[in-house]
Amino acid sequence: MKRLAILGSTGSIGQSTLSIVEQFPDRYQVASLAAGRNLDEAFAQSVRWRPSLVSLATEELAGQLAQRLKTAGITGIEVVHGTQGTVACAITPEADFVVSAIVGVAGLEATHAAILAGKPVGLANKECMVAAGEILTAAARQRNVPILPIDSEHNAVHQCLRVGQHREVKTIWLTASGGPFRQMPLQDFAHITPEQALKHPTWVMGRRITIDSATMLNKGLEIIEACRLFNVPPSQVKVTVHPQSTVHSLVEYIDGSILAQISITDMRLPILYALAYPERPASTLTFDLAALKHLDFEPPDFERFPCLRLAYEAAEKGGAHCIALNAADEIAVEAFLDKRIPFMGIPRTIEKVLATTPEAHPATIAEVLASDREARQTARAVLA
Amino acid sequence: MKRLAILGSTGSIGQSTLSIVEQFPDRYQVASLAAGRNLDEAFAQSVRWRPSLVSLATEELAGQLAQRLKTAGITGIEVVHGTQGTVACAITPEADFVVSAIVGVAGLEATHAAILAGKPVGLANKECMVAAGEILTAAARQRNVPILPIDSEHNAVHQCLRVGQHREVKTIWLTASGGPFRQMPLQDFAHITPEQALKHPTWVMGRRITIDSATMLNKGLEIIEACRLFNVPPSQVKVTVHPQSTVHSLVEYIDGSILAQISITDMRLPILYALAYPERPASTLTFDLAALKHLDFEPPDFERFPCLRLAYEAAEKGGAHCIALNAADEIAVEAFLDKRIPFMGIPRTIEKVLATTPEAHPATIAEVLASDREARQTARAVLA
Repeated sequence: MKRLAILGSTGSIGQSTLSIVEQFPDRYQVASLAAGRNLDEAFAQSVRWRPSLVSLATEELAGQLAQRLKTAGITGIEVVHGTQGTVACAITPEADFVVSAIVGVAGLEATHAAILAGKPVGLANKECMVAAGEILTAAARQRNVPILPIDSEHNAVHQCLRVGQHREVKTIWLTASGGPFRQMPLQDFAHITPEQALKHPTWVMGRRITIDSATMLNKGLEIIEACRLFNVPPSQVKVTVHPQSTVHSLVEYIDGSILAQISITDMRLPILYALAYPERPASTLTFDLAALKHLDFEPPDFERFPCLRLAYEAAEKGGAHCIALNAADEIAVEAFLDKRIPFMGIPRTIEKVLATTPEAHPATIAEVLASDREARQTARAVLA
Repeated sequence: MKRLAILGSTGSIGQSTLSIVEQFPDRYQVASLAAGRNLDEAFAQSVRWRPSLVSLATEELAGQLAQRLKTAGITGIEVVHGTQGTVACAITPEADFVVSAIVGVAGLEATHAAILAGKPVGLANKECMVAAGEILTAAARQRNVPILPIDSEHNAVHQCLRVGQHREVKTIWLTASGGPFRQMPLQDFAHITPEQALKHPTWVMGRRITIDSATMLNKGLEIIEACRLFNVPPSQVKVTVHPQSTVHSLVEYIDGSILAQISITDMRLPILYALAYPERPASTLTFDLAALKHLDFEPPDFERFPCLRLAYEAAEKGGAHCIALNAADEIAVEAFLDKRIPFMGIPRTIEKVLATTPEAHPATIAEVLASDREARQTARAVLA
């Protein structure tokens, strides 16, 4: 029986994780839940899963949840709040495994604390690895703690890496759907609206990640994530555009063999893999290979998607540049969604922020968060 | 340093194996060579590789080789002949690894002897597994001897099986090019000539295997081979038609993940994999993933290719039925190449032979060979 701490329990990955717990009651139970501001959902999850610890964003929300639990006659659930509350959920002795699924750098401290506490982490939060990957992977190596990627690409890579040694890896190939503008003429990019950009061809996701998918900055963040998770230089991570999102990624070995992972596009699959690793429980999340018709691949277009180039440049420099790439993008995407800048203003903003970013390698989470705040200020100044 | 016994050294796989030895002189050397009737090539290989033991098909050929070596002033090479000579090559204490690449059941005794002698085997001879797989795999399990498949499909499966446990395997998917008649209207099958059937779209191979590829009997033999090599029932082995022969096979796990292996169509790659396993040496046999455009898949057509159905039926019955499938096919293919029967006469002949084959499970290689001879006689009688 694995007892889970779920950080970001009311979000999409958190809810999918709970649906896996529901399907495998003999394998998993819930030790702690860290939610944000969704009081109703946090209450419902507390009632359903009876964790020993629940955290909400603020003291006020925590007080309301405690009151509602009391009114409902439910005891034995401690309610905490804020970053400290999230950290408490991550390091509680009641949990054997931490699912890190809080979006953005908000999950950083708790994820770091989980690793320092020796807890295996299922990582769905790519900003963690982009902003603080150097710190997190160093801590994980030191404490011999596995970090299991919960996103389809890195999860696929993790699987494909099991058929060889690290020194035998030539290239990690991340697949990219190419987003909705893969075939749009470049001159039309100036007129892309938020409404167009929010239509992703294969995955249903949050607003920022959908725009990041349209600019391919998302794939850029994944390149950096892959470098950190799998300890390879950026030159060993490449992207192939694969519109069907059926092959989730590939690993090319030095002998010439390439291993690929194929599955349905459902996040429950990488979640189950991470929770159960190294086992594979039987699931109903099957892909109908007999119905497979075509798989298409093409090289990514760096002219159309300058965010990819910017990501490689940030990956080479590491540290503050990776933090700035992520932070500047978040601010630029907000501006694009607010119709303050055009679509191609996103990479232009990032490029300007990167140009003023010092070469630095934050050594603590506090330094990472300071560097993140600084990059956001620079981005706002660039946009003003 | 691995010292190799190469059975079938003058054939296509044998020569490819020697080209790998040439490329990796610090990893491999040649201990023994078993050739057939190609005296000139056997002489050239002996001069180049200086094995301690060489075997030829007959006493006369062996005498001629010994004489040519003596004339050339080359000493230290013992020349033997016949089945006993091949067995001697397989079990010589000078060899650590046996490449079994003699076509047909001729390589059976030597392969069995190698396993009994505790030598790891790289198996390129699929008839061995089809005719005597039950005996060979039982011996290999008992002696804890690895059998590493040297054909692109099973080699791919072997790789894909490394990312999970045996009990976690749902289906082994063998890819099939579909041969030259994949898209030909069924009513034209009556007029297929040997010349048409000998044109394989992706692989250059021997005559029988090329015809077997056109009838898909070859894939049928591979289904049986997969059952034996990987210890799964026929219901767990399926075929997907993949005209590009880029994905060499796939393994579907019970959790929903499918692993696929991709590489160039060059037999040196599975040979290198088998020789080096579990390592992966750097090779120049690379696949250009950046240039990959399309991969197509479709279900196999059992009406067009009745050999597939016959193979599943034989696989279910095992033993003598698998032997008869292979033996009857070889006789029927000869008859087709001699223009004595039409293309669809091949499955019809096999079906008639299978119908008269008793349900039996030969327990020794001698019984396998007797069963094989009997099936050939039946096939000839059916054709007469």
